[in-house]
Amino acid sequence: MATAQKPLRRDAPLAEVLERAQNADPRAVARLISLVEDDSPALREVAAALAPHTGRAQVLGLTGSPGVGKSTSTNALVAAIRKQDKRVGVLAVDPSSPFSGGALLGDRVRMQDHATDSGVYIRSMASRGHLGGLSWATPQAVRVLDAAGCDVVMVETVGVGQAEVDVASLADTTVVLLAPGMGDGIQAAKAGILEIADIFVVNKADRDGADQVVRDLNGMLRLGGRHAEAGAWRPEIVSTVASEGKGIDDVLTAIDKHRAWMEESGELHRRRLRRAAAEIEAIAVKTLRERMGDLRGQQALGSLAAAVVEGRQDPYVSADRLIDGLSSE
Amino acid sequence: MATAQKPLRRDAPLAEVLERAQNADPRAVARLISLVEDDSPALREVAAALAPHTGRAQVLGLTGSPGVGKSTSTNALVAAIRKQDKRVGVLAVDPSSPFSGGALLGDRVRMQDHATDSGVYIRSMASRGHLGGLSWATPQAVRVLDAAGCDVVMVETVGVGQAEVDVASLADTTVVLLAPGMGDGIQAAKAGILEIADIFVVNKADRDGADQVVRDLNGMLRLGGRHAEAGAWRPEIVSTVASEGKGIDDVLTAIDKHRAWMEESGELHRRRLRRAAAEIEAIAVKTLRERMGDLRGQQALGSLAAAVVEGRQDPYVSADRLIDGLSSE
Repeated sequence: MATAQKPLRRDAPLAEVLERAQNADPRAVARLISLVEDDSPALREVAAALAPHTGRAQVLGLTGSPGVGKSTSTNALVAAIRKQDKRVGVLAVDPSSPFSGGALLGDRVRMQDHATDSGVYIRSMASRGHLGGLSWATPQAVRVLDAAGCDVVMVETVGVGQAEVDVASLADTTVVLLAPGMGDGIQAAKAGILEIADIFVVNKADRDGADQVVRDLNGMLRLGGRHAEAGAWRPEIVSTVASEGKGIDDVLTAIDKHRAWMEESGELHRRRLRRAAAEIEAIAVKTLRERMGDLRGQQALGSLAAAVVEGRQDPYVSADRLIDGLSSE
Repeated sequence: MATAQKPLRRDAPLAEVLERAQNADPRAVARLISLVEDDSPALREVAAALAPHTGRAQVLGLTGSPGVGKSTSTNALVAAIRKQDKRVGVLAVDPSSPFSGGALLGDRVRMQDHATDSGVYIRSMASRGHLGGLSWATPQAVRVLDAAGCDVVMVETVGVGQAEVDVASLADTTVVLLAPGMGDGIQAAKAGILEIADIFVVNKADRDGADQVVRDLNGMLRLGGRHAEAGAWRPEIVSTVASEGKGIDDVLTAIDKHRAWMEESGELHRRRLRRAAAEIEAIAVKTLRERMGDLRGQQALGSLAAAVVEGRQDPYVSADRLIDGLSSE
């Protein structure tokens, strides 16, 4: 990502790590994102130090079903953004690794194309199940990359269920990838992606059925929803063959167009307010959950659970007791 | 589901709906599950009335990627369980419809095979994004079916990310479906399904590559994880062609075997305690979230969000303020 010459000592004080991260030292950035992944107590200090330096990066969300070509598309987009001489950070969030600590799809595999480029920082993150992985940790990692001077932060995740809602909630612009031959016509409708997509990319456009995917999308957009309102953004549909770099510039053009609309319409500010509210709420919920778990060494929750299993008490009354316990601690 | 003759009046009092649901009147069951979907204030009363009648049903989770044949497999399993003269409730949870009120995959489509069978109740539910759809609402719907006398409650959901973790956390036995030709070898590893599967079903076993999927699974199981511990359950691997009903009895046999192990080992009770604890916690978190949103008409969260967007305050400090506001209300 940049110019730091000295290695970062393992026992470097946080102040030094923070300073070096703000000067785009990739090792310092890595250290800070690891603190996020580890849910380190130092995060409060990190968040306080970074806050004044955030809010500059453009945040792009990229989502789609397995097999549509997300990694290839991300790589191609990174290359195209780099040609504009912008710094890029990529967070590849794997919401399907809830229990393990590390994403299986290693950073090294993904970084190949950009390994020697100091203007690109790529990081895989595993999101971790019940404590609200993506909703809590990813925005904090975005903050780190933002404060480290990334002009663009791309958050890539598998597009199913809550993960894609979360990615949409933290992005300025959400790109949904589709590909022919994956039943995506139906998947699109099922997945509620119409609600989150600012731009549709139909990848593998050289394959049979790509035109049909575009037609299906156009058909669904005509059916209305939030896009039918006056002054609303109508999602662009772009065809690509990411493996050959075809259409990637069109994706960037669509992103720029959406960005311009966001600024003109005031939607950018509204989205960032919503994102901050969601972020605050996620941290508050996480904190409250930890307190609930900690109540008298989990005994409170354990005995409430036993009462529910035995049918002696319903879960609503039990939840009330749990909440009462929070304030009497 | 059973024998109720009279239609259920729209304005029937809750007491009547509850009584009829406990007598397996499908219209009353539908009414109660709608209350869950609508997050009705009446749910507290419903939960209290049902609590003594729950804990009897065997809860099966069924999950897998789009296209592996979940609906077909569910239908075949329902038919096989019905031959044992057990009552079956099916909840098809669609975690990919976060914003819309209803699941697009209608109940009517899915019920075709069992429409005339009063021993089967099938219901699609949309889970709804940030308020913790599956984690909060699904266990309540399971309670309704349990109290209505279902011997088996099957919860079917798309197996990606948080949804499959949630379904595993509420099931006695979790069945993970795979199929050849979907990159499932890699998907399996990525998806952390080894952590949640009690039984693997390799569907479409008549297709090329099915043997390879079985080999891959066996290979991964040999690598260890929680299954390698002494006395642990080693997940069964069953091959099926659900569309022809092949192998379905083997799946039921594996489920019975797992059930027997669960009872012997004490794991059934432990899982149910964990499930109840998660359920209580989900309701408590939902309640606290509602209180946070309600704080002075959302103004508290709004002004905290503005401070974060402007870099004046970090999200941790903002979350502390939000929590402080809860107790001073």
